[in-house]
Amino acid sequence: MNNYDGLWLKSLTKTLLDCDTPLQAAEAELADFFRRRDAGERFELSVDEALGEGYCVERTGGVYHLSGGNTGILYGAYDLIRELHNGGEAEKLASSPRYPLRMLNSWDNMDGTVERGYSGRSIWFEGNRFDYDPERIRYLGRLLASAHVNVLCVNNVNVHAPAQRLLTDLLPDLAAFAALLRPFGVRLMVSIDFSLPLSSGLQTADPLAQEVQKFWNETASIAWAAIPDLAGFLVKADSEHRPGPNAYGRTHAEGANMLGRAVKPYGGVVVWRAFVYDCLQDWRNVKTDRPCAAYQIYQPLDGDFVDNVILQIKNGPFDFQVREPVSPLLLSMQNTNTALEVQLAQEYTGQQIDLYAMPPMWKEIFDVLPAERIQAIAAVSNLGRDYFWTGHPFAALNLYAFGRLAWDPAIDPAAVIDEWIRLTYTMPDTDREKLLTLLLNSRHVYELYTATLGLCWMITPHTHYGPNPDGYEYDLWGTYHRADRNAVGIDRTALGTGYTAQYPPELQAFYENRETCPDELLLFFHRVAYDAQLHDGRTLIQRIYDDHFEGCAEAEKMAETLQSLPLPETDRQEAVKRMAMQLKNAREWRDVINTFFYRFSGAEDEQGRTIYP
Amino acid sequence: MNNYDGLWLKSLTKTLLDCDTPLQAAEAELADFFRRRDAGERFELSVDEALGEGYCVERTGGVYHLSGGNTGILYGAYDLIRELHNGGEAEKLASSPRYPLRMLNSWDNMDGTVERGYSGRSIWFEGNRFDYDPERIRYLGRLLASAHVNVLCVNNVNVHAPAQRLLTDLLPDLAAFAALLRPFGVRLMVSIDFSLPLSSGLQTADPLAQEVQKFWNETASIAWAAIPDLAGFLVKADSEHRPGPNAYGRTHAEGANMLGRAVKPYGGVVVWRAFVYDCLQDWRNVKTDRPCAAYQIYQPLDGDFVDNVILQIKNGPFDFQVREPVSPLLLSMQNTNTALEVQLAQEYTGQQIDLYAMPPMWKEIFDVLPAERIQAIAAVSNLGRDYFWTGHPFAALNLYAFGRLAWDPAIDPAAVIDEWIRLTYTMPDTDREKLLTLLLNSRHVYELYTATLGLCWMITPHTHYGPNPDGYEYDLWGTYHRADRNAVGIDRTALGTGYTAQYPPELQAFYENRETCPDELLLFFHRVAYDAQLHDGRTLIQRIYDDHFEGCAEAEKMAETLQSLPLPETDRQEAVKRMAMQLKNAREWRDVINTFFYRFSGAEDEQGRTIYP
Repeated sequence: MNNYDGLWLKSLTKTLLDCDTPLQAAEAELADFFRRRDAGERFELSVDEALGEGYCVERTGGVYHLSGGNTGILYGAYDLIRELHNGGEAEKLASSPRYPLRMLNSWDNMDGTVERGYSGRSIWFEGNRFDYDPERIRYLGRLLASAHVNVLCVNNVNVHAPAQRLLTDLLPDLAAFAALLRPFGVRLMVSIDFSLPLSSGLQTADPLAQEVQKFWNETASIAWAAIPDLAGFLVKADSEHRPGPNAYGRTHAEGANMLGRAVKPYGGVVVWRAFVYDCLQDWRNVKTDRPCAAYQIYQPLDGDFVDNVILQIKNGPFDFQVREPVSPLLLSMQNTNTALEVQLAQEYTGQQIDLYAMPPMWKEIFDVLPAERIQAIAAVSNLGRDYFWTGHPFAALNLYAFGRLAWDPAIDPAAVIDEWIRLTYTMPDTDREKLLTLLLNSRHVYELYTATLGLCWMITPHTHYGPNPDGYEYDLWGTYHRADRNAVGIDRTALGTGYTAQYPPELQAFYENRETCPDELLLFFHRVAYDAQLHDGRTLIQRIYDDHFEGCAEAEKMAETLQSLPLPETDRQEAVKRMAMQLKNAREWRDVINTFFYRFSGAEDEQGRTIYP
Repeated sequence: MNNYDGLWLKSLTKTLLDCDTPLQAAEAELADFFRRRDAGERFELSVDEALGEGYCVERTGGVYHLSGGNTGILYGAYDLIRELHNGGEAEKLASSPRYPLRMLNSWDNMDGTVERGYSGRSIWFEGNRFDYDPERIRYLGRLLASAHVNVLCVNNVNVHAPAQRLLTDLLPDLAAFAALLRPFGVRLMVSIDFSLPLSSGLQTADPLAQEVQKFWNETASIAWAAIPDLAGFLVKADSEHRPGPNAYGRTHAEGANMLGRAVKPYGGVVVWRAFVYDCLQDWRNVKTDRPCAAYQIYQPLDGDFVDNVILQIKNGPFDFQVREPVSPLLLSMQNTNTALEVQLAQEYTGQQIDLYAMPPMWKEIFDVLPAERIQAIAAVSNLGRDYFWTGHPFAALNLYAFGRLAWDPAIDPAAVIDEWIRLTYTMPDTDREKLLTLLLNSRHVYELYTATLGLCWMITPHTHYGPNPDGYEYDLWGTYHRADRNAVGIDRTALGTGYTAQYPPELQAFYENRETCPDELLLFFHRVAYDAQLHDGRTLIQRIYDDHFEGCAEAEKMAETLQSLPLPETDRQEAVKRMAMQLKNAREWRDVINTFFYRFSGAEDEQGRTIYP
């Protein structure tokens, strides 16, 4: 038995491969499920367009009546299967999504590479063109639908040639790809290059120039003619050297609105990424503070965006670090559609080698972020052509859980992890509980050895795996810890860089006050002397040592637990192999970070453990 | 007038392009020179094979009688031209080379890239095959002959596919290339892959296996049949993941001798690189010290190598850092042929952006290394398809001076730099002296801001340009400075890692004694507290600050000098552009290194200059 025999990723039936609509897919899935279940039950399906993406299930005797909207019918089918498979009764189910746009952003390049991809090469691009196994794309559609993800952005936000041509001569290929996913309720989005008018022969890409507006209107008209259910455009503009409206003295709103108006007639949206900051910063400059950037740029534009523009904002003010506070921009855009962006690809979080289950992290976000403050949710994909699709077999959990989060941000981390385990593996309850605990704690453990107390960016530059505490310290990216022989961290209070002033008053006060600021964010918000006392009476330096020793020891315990689990052999081998790499990584982090701070502070470990000089 | 109008790199005449022998080339060069000189002089040439690479010139009235060996005749022609062009009388000249093997090691890959190349792509490889302009190769031959370089190793010591095939199906292409260089007295060498027998179908590459010996004997036989004057094989084995004899439990001598015997019948040599160390070192381990490695491995093998094997040893025990002591291995191989290896490609020394004239550095080497301790000399090439051949127009000096050094290691740095300037540029004496001073000091200036007091490896990992003081500190490469809040450096005395014990007793004592150890090597040999006093009474930390401020200020003065020089416009523009990059680099080094040590030491600069916190 391998992973593909698990329910979530089980083999496609021939019938499913031939489906043209979500209704047909729902029928095929349920027929297959009940045949295997072999309990004398039946199902009846009825489409009620008014239900949209929602659905209802009612059981009458041995008959399950499922009604749902055009795609809701398929989500209902998957949820019914999950409930029954996981031991539920499914007497009555009814659900509809919290967010209508639940998007996966693939960072796939047309040459087949995946930016920050840890699961092998692109599933659909190779050799600068679409190149895929259609059956695998059906699998992909099913995978996304089962997680209720309804939009796939097909290409990297950094639009590398020839991906500009997805909207021109490669449009028929894009349409063919869209058709394969349509039966699973998955619509496509395309990352566009703001300077496309220039490469198409215009003299300008100024969003206020009539010829540019005409160009985009025509481009949209052609695109939606080919793919009537195209979801829209995703745009990374004026960010990390990407072109944008600033080159013409225009605001992000002017750039986004021009595109928004072009796609409006077709029901399309423009998702505009707010990941903008000075990426040519001088480390000598202590006034500029990168976490302040997005708010400074976008908050003044609140209310200026047209209604089909969505501002996509990363969860934290930096860039998917292990621990960041919620981006203040997410809390402050009262009159703008916003999307929360999270990253399933474990760029800074272990690269699908180290275990890192994300639901606990997402719960922390929604503990601060009211669900109604955002209108959509997006995740950077962790998928690739890898055997397990996600590098580590357990990393599939994060994709599954993301879909559940986007459907219902109130999901309980333990519940969703347990759900995924039950859908994926068959094992005794005690083992399942062990695996649940292991996954549930995995983020905390990774944080202990890589990013204690909110310190971030001590990671190896470029690769973003393994420790290199000064690696980014004198670089251009605005990512500094400023450790010296006395203290570490940056004062981000009103008296420091002023970052905290971007939060609502009560949160500002909460973070500014050393008494209330959570320990795990202490070094994000404050500069702290090594001998300063923390809440529990330990000094900062001792806490740094303790956390790193503890993180590594916990990882070693995880390795033992993993060894004991009755996983399918293929999964077990891969997970054990990666755990050995994680242990090596954890030890390296422990020793490097401890030594780094020992060399600065000169402080001995109170428990006399080994810190290398 | 541009660089190519200078004498050293002037346009080839049609006659020269058609030459088949060094004698013909000598005739063509002299005829062209005297025609331009237009002073009613004549020359007569006679080949005296007994002179080998040497030559004599005697002037009788207006007639220069030049006799020389087969290639000596051409070297004599170039030297006569140089003497006369540079204002000499050339009444009587006689010279012969100190080292018979004066080799340029190109690190060209067959895909057209050049490892650590800063002068564009390969001159002769592209698209995994030979691909060149034959006229350019003649230029190359002339360039090398004018510097008296007599062997060119055609491919990277890291043999990447398909370069293994240079000795098999690509041999005819290699022979055609060799033919183009033959008229200039330049013979080819080939970097080989020790595991070639495996990729050729054998089950082993064990040097003691008969079938392997047979394989190499046949390979040599075929190679020399195609290229009778092939110089030999260059081998990087058991080094940085390259295959070698250790895999079969054999020594380097056993591996090298097997190859030596194979090429012996044809007069070939095997150049075996001694650049071997543990490149998977653990930074926690303070016992293993990379500079000790080559001596530990090779010194016990002294006397074991057959007489046509040459052990090629880098000038210092690390890897072409700005400042290293002479490798103790060079001083200790009494019964082994050795070659000194230097690096013209400015990998760690400014990448042909920052000025770095090498003759002063080489003089320091030969101040310690008796010329007779080595039997050959090799340099990693700085050539490429770039307009100036060497990236920076002034970097051509290093190639020229290397040839002069290999001919006569007693060359005076100022004299050879002056020679090169006169051959390359026409400018008033005062300007020439300014340029001479600028070049003569350039290494010292670069050292001040990048590698004060023998500190090395504080460079950006992988790229090897720009500062990153901790970049290699926790890495696998054995390159540590171990700076902490009190001190910096590694104790390499007998009481420390024991490295100094590899030197002859008087040198050991010289380096071990803090009183006699030269300041510029202080932090190579000793661990020193920041508040320790140096010879001039300054503290170490103050000296670090002072050197970095001074280095940067000197670079700024160099920029002013450069601006004032009447260089050909093409050269001037390039040199000025690169100088702006050098200044940026120098400032970055100054500020990063000063801040790095300030954060550790907490010591203020006595002169109150800006050190960023």
